[in-house]
Amino acid sequence: MKTAVVGGTGYGAVELIRLLDKHPMVQLESIVSHSQSGTEIHAVYPHLSNIVHLTMDEWNIQNLHQQVDIVFFATPAGVSKELLPQCREYDLQCIDLSGDFRLASREIYETWYGKAAPATAFLQEAVYGLTEIFAADIKQSRLISNPGCYPTAALLGLIPLVKNRLIDLGSIIIDGKTGVSGAGRSVSLGTHFSEVNENVKAYKIGSHQHIPEIEQYINAVLPEADAEKDVKVTFSAHLLPMTRGIMCTMYADLTAPVTTAELGRLYAQFYDGHPFVRVRPEGILPATKEVCGSNYCDIGIHADERTGRVTIVSVIDNLVKGAAGQAVQNMNVVNGWDVTAGLTDIPLYP
Amino acid sequence: MKTAVVGGTGYGAVELIRLLDKHPMVQLESIVSHSQSGTEIHAVYPHLSNIVHLTMDEWNIQNLHQQVDIVFFATPAGVSKELLPQCREYDLQCIDLSGDFRLASREIYETWYGKAAPATAFLQEAVYGLTEIFAADIKQSRLISNPGCYPTAALLGLIPLVKNRLIDLGSIIIDGKTGVSGAGRSVSLGTHFSEVNENVKAYKIGSHQHIPEIEQYINAVLPEADAEKDVKVTFSAHLLPMTRGIMCTMYADLTAPVTTAELGRLYAQFYDGHPFVRVRPEGILPATKEVCGSNYCDIGIHADERTGRVTIVSVIDNLVKGAAGQAVQNMNVVNGWDVTAGLTDIPLYP
Amino acid sequence: MKTAVVGGTGYGAVELIRLLDKHPMVQLESIVSHSQSGTEIHAVYPHLSNIVHLTMDEWNIQNLHQQVDIVFFATPAGVSKELLPQCREYDLQCIDLSGDFRLASREIYETWYGKAAPATAFLQEAVYGLTEIFAADIKQSRLISNPGCYPTAALLGLIPLVKNRLIDLGSIIIDGKTGVSGAGRSVSLGTHFSEVNENVKAYKIGSHQHIPEIEQYINAVLPEADAEKDVKVTFSAHLLPMTRGIMCTMYADLTAPVTTAELGRLYAQFYDGHPFVRVRPEGILPATKEVCGSNYCDIGIHADERTGRVTIVSVIDNLVKGAAGQAVQNMNVVNGWDVTAGLTDIPLYP
Amino acid sequence: MKTAVVGGTGYGAVELIRLLDKHPMVQLESIVSHSQSGTEIHAVYPHLSNIVHLTMDEWNIQNLHQQVDIVFFATPAGVSKELLPQCREYDLQCIDLSGDFRLASREIYETWYGKAAPATAFLQEAVYGLTEIFAADIKQSRLISNPGCYPTAALLGLIPLVKNRLIDLGSIIIDGKTGVSGAGRSVSLGTHFSEVNENVKAYKIGSHQHIPEIEQYINAVLPEADAEKDVKVTFSAHLLPMTRGIMCTMYADLTAPVTTAELGRLYAQFYDGHPFVRVRPEGILPATKEVCGSNYCDIGIHADERTGRVTIVSVIDNLVKGAAGQAVQNMNVVNGWDVTAGLTDIPLYP
Repeated sequence: MKTAVVGGTGYGAVELIRLLDKHPMVQLESIVSHSQSGTEIHAVYPHLSNIVHLTMDEWNIQNLHQQVDIVFFATPAGVSKELLPQCREYDLQCIDLSGDFRLASREIYETWYGKAAPATAFLQEAVYGLTEIFAADIKQSRLISNPGCYPTAALLGLIPLVKNRLIDLGSIIIDGKTGVSGAGRSVSLGTHFSEVNENVKAYKIGSHQHIPEIEQYINAVLPEADAEKDVKVTFSAHLLPMTRGIMCTMYADLTAPVTTAELGRLYAQFYDGHPFVRVRPEGILPATKEVCGSNYCDIGIHADERTGRVTIVSVIDNLVKGAAGQAVQNMNVVNGWDVTAGLTDIPLYP
Repeated sequence: MKTAVVGGTGYGAVELIRLLDKHPMVQLESIVSHSQSGTEIHAVYPHLSNIVHLTMDEWNIQNLHQQVDIVFFATPAGVSKELLPQCREYDLQCIDLSGDFRLASREIYETWYGKAAPATAFLQEAVYGLTEIFAADIKQSRLISNPGCYPTAALLGLIPLVKNRLIDLGSIIIDGKTGVSGAGRSVSLGTHFSEVNENVKAYKIGSHQHIPEIEQYINAVLPEADAEKDVKVTFSAHLLPMTRGIMCTMYADLTAPVTTAELGRLYAQFYDGHPFVRVRPEGILPATKEVCGSNYCDIGIHADERTGRVTIVSVIDNLVKGAAGQAVQNMNVVNGWDVTAGLTDIPLYP
Repeated sequence: MKTAVVGGTGYGAVELIRLLDKHPMVQLESIVSHSQSGTEIHAVYPHLSNIVHLTMDEWNIQNLHQQVDIVFFATPAGVSKELLPQCREYDLQCIDLSGDFRLASREIYETWYGKAAPATAFLQEAVYGLTEIFAADIKQSRLISNPGCYPTAALLGLIPLVKNRLIDLGSIIIDGKTGVSGAGRSVSLGTHFSEVNENVKAYKIGSHQHIPEIEQYINAVLPEADAEKDVKVTFSAHLLPMTRGIMCTMYADLTAPVTTAELGRLYAQFYDGHPFVRVRPEGILPATKEVCGSNYCDIGIHADERTGRVTIVSVIDNLVKGAAGQAVQNMNVVNGWDVTAGLTDIPLYP
Repeated sequence: MKTAVVGGTGYGAVELIRLLDKHPMVQLESIVSHSQSGTEIHAVYPHLSNIVHLTMDEWNIQNLHQQVDIVFFATPAGVSKELLPQCREYDLQCIDLSGDFRLASREIYETWYGKAAPATAFLQEAVYGLTEIFAADIKQSRLISNPGCYPTAALLGLIPLVKNRLIDLGSIIIDGKTGVSGAGRSVSLGTHFSEVNENVKAYKIGSHQHIPEIEQYINAVLPEADAEKDVKVTFSAHLLPMTRGIMCTMYADLTAPVTTAELGRLYAQFYDGHPFVRVRPEGILPATKEVCGSNYCDIGIHADERTGRVTIVSVIDNLVKGAAGQAVQNMNVVNGWDVTAGLTDIPLYP
């Protein structure tokens, strides 16, 4: 099958290009970039020299629908909501890496994103692409809304506890830590090397647009007995002096005494058959470097008897499982291919 | 007055050397190092060439008590408990940067440090050197136990809330993030560049020896109405790819509705007259680089109406306010000097 | 075919494991480690969890020769010279990533390495695995001595000029810059994070063991008219605060006026048909990140009219083209496979 | 005396603020910033909170000349050439950290900077502030042109050899390596964290504006016997993943056999009485971290018998000795103060 990537000069797009290049079932036919159309991609990204020979295209749905079957959107907030509906008229498969179609409520989108929301019809059509949790729905869908990077790490870490009613739903705290590539390639003082290097900075505490996303999908998976609850979480974001990687350290009050070993078995069972989630043995905590360049989400667990609280540490590569890799994983599910197709790389270590 | 630094090849010691060199009231007379006695300090640390001309001495209390008035211990756990009592026989002022004299209970020390505890007499004599909180006791003392790096950042961030009964004491969570210099200069796989760079790793969750230290001193400052409580905290530590800096992001449930602005005023008032604590204006969060090389502790606050929870972000340079700088600050208090003597440097930025 | 990797806990070995896992023609059967035999590899390297399921073996040639066809040695200097001859008795294909078999002269080896040299017979049998230059010999060989990281970058950058007699052979200067992973996984003060981060340090100026290696292979490719010359080079090494990547900046006096554009064409022609060498267009200089995780060597050229001197910038990933990747490339050549088999990954950027 | 800093939001300016704050003889009265006038400095640089209480001023020479005695310009190329002449009308002491007044020839300035040159009268008045070499002239001057960062490191490393006729003047090669802060605080793709981190990049090879500056001042100090020579150098620049620090690795052909030890003595003698230049003992090479935050220039030397070539390694903190620190040092010389006033800090290590 043939694919296009829209948003050709951003890090999400270039990571899609890297992964699609090694995918056995698809071919990349077009890279769409508004700002750089007419430029060869390797002029913008020399690491693609002699490998990817495409010249970037202007957006043109008439051409695109004849060229490709699947369109990935790796565009800033507010762009895919304009372009993606055009693709759906031609029934192209769409996978959107931006936040445009993740929030079911137009009002909540507008509150947290500060932009006009997409049309309700598309919000209703969109399926949230957290593959391990929503694969059944994803398989039926032609419009996948790929999860945010923080929500991917947070939800995969929390959902086993939520589904098993092991934690007080009012007590969830998520301390997020990210590398700089999550902020994209646009230049800003906040991503200037001399400001970020040898530094850690908290940002957007209480106001990050990933908060309603995490809440919506925790609420979506509540067991029946909790179905009436409206879970809210505390989330804070921190910028770390590294390029790739997200860690979420999550805290919650346990509803009953449980050991780390018991939780380890529960997680292992919950993710049995899901090759991209790896649960660390008791006493071992994951590090972001252990998933670098790969689609893995690694999870470590600590149940603390002294405080009756559980700590969950979840790590991903924000550009892979947190963006382009999970998008490919979703494409695999939609098309009935092996879920690991094109995603079998061992992490790059060290 | 004349000073000695014991533990001459570690980062705590070398940072003391840097700060004592610019102190107007003292002179560094001796650097004691067991492993490197007889070596010139600049052979181990070339950045001291042409500035510090001392050759390191073997420990010898007979010589030392004739040479100096004040002894700093920047030694690994378990060392000062042997050496410091010898100094006290000669009534030398002692400031211990290790954890040996921080925990009042020998049993708790032995549980968390896995070593035999110091003699009770010295534990009782020691005063905890969190200067902003315990200055009155410090002034009377000749044996200061200098706080750990994480506890310094955590306690300065939490105590205004604790003292004002604004948070549920059972809900305190501290997410600690540190640069690598806190682990000292000893080589290990965990501090190997290729393992730490471009990485974030959680460690010692639930088992860090700074947990009982934080708990002891929260319990020490409880207002009368809470005096019966035995506060326990959840603390996790994370190693970041940077050399200097500690951030503690702290979460707790508010006992009553309060705004960020109100908390800002409360903190500003609490630390009025304490030049090394700086409270950021509403909406601004601190970063570790903003205190690099200095004795400041910068604090940002966010009260979240949605969740009824407060988030406090506290940053220090782990080698300065978290070690050598606070030790100098305590020396200033003990000797009745201006608390800022030798500590007036502007942070090194960027 | 079946392979073994000897030296299982080092970075060279773990990078071989990463690359062999994606190679279409081989299977990894054994990881040999003296220090960690009996341990599962993922206990040492958690990033391999759920992917590589091997337990490390003790060295045992009797078992090994029945298990595998090809043995890679990623061992410290002085080890393969003892073990590899045992493999040659069973006619196993051997690729040695250490320096043991690179220098033809036992005397020169002993001078620069400070160890006893291997037996002459094996030094004579060994073929130097700089694939682009010596493929014809490699194809015939069963004992490949894989080049050092600096020599790979330096020789690929210099040989087109040497072969075309464009530079004064007495004027060659190589300024080498490396990431820390080249120093391996053994801990030392020189690779301690707090010492390396935010720092650049020159080391081993005039005494690096890669100097005689570079000289030997420049002398090996001299055109007939220069055959009598005994080329010596000035080389300096610098440790940079990054994990992967080597850059060699090389300087030489031009023997005749030539433009950057002319040199660009000459390099492009020289490396025509060699997919892993990419020559940048005039005015563009390469960066190490542009080859991260890949087997590429990217080269930039600047001929300076003012000074009559040429500057060549050559970059590789030290663990791939500078070690494990070139070893796989050599395996491909020896076995008549496509030279790019298992090595088609796009660099990981950013 | 009273000082002003023009260019208040750049890194050069903020480093001046840091150093002037601890200077015993001066007081900072005004920070001038065109883009941020009316803003408090700590709103732009929170690390200055509670320390520096100035609001930034618009440029206004009528006010300025009544407020201050000394004006530092830390402005982009092309700005001080417009503003500084206004200060000279009032005979204010001027120290310019930009490149505007460094090149004696208007034509060369225009070639390398691509801007219109300053008026000849001011070029003639300006004295080059490489303090160790030109102190006699600096003492007489009211218009100091502070050296560039690379030239400071390069010239201090080369001049002892040039003055002693120990190297072939046609053979000088300078391999420069810089941290990112040298590029200033303006955002650009080239200083974006994700592009710079874990990367080394060569840039401006053969075209850097510091080339004519280095050449002019080598030619200015030639001994009489070489006075006719027009020395040209090869210089290349490399951007390293660190914030502060410059290293110049310099190569030249020796004119006569000389040992490293002999050169060490020669350098030590040459810089005797110059406290900011430290010569490393034989076999020890300097690292940038060893001068971080300080005004030192540390030099290591290796004379290579095999090749008849010398390698000099010179390191500085680009923002201190390469900018603000040397500016303060020049102020000290001009005003007859101790040359180390305000500059006695021990480097920040680690």
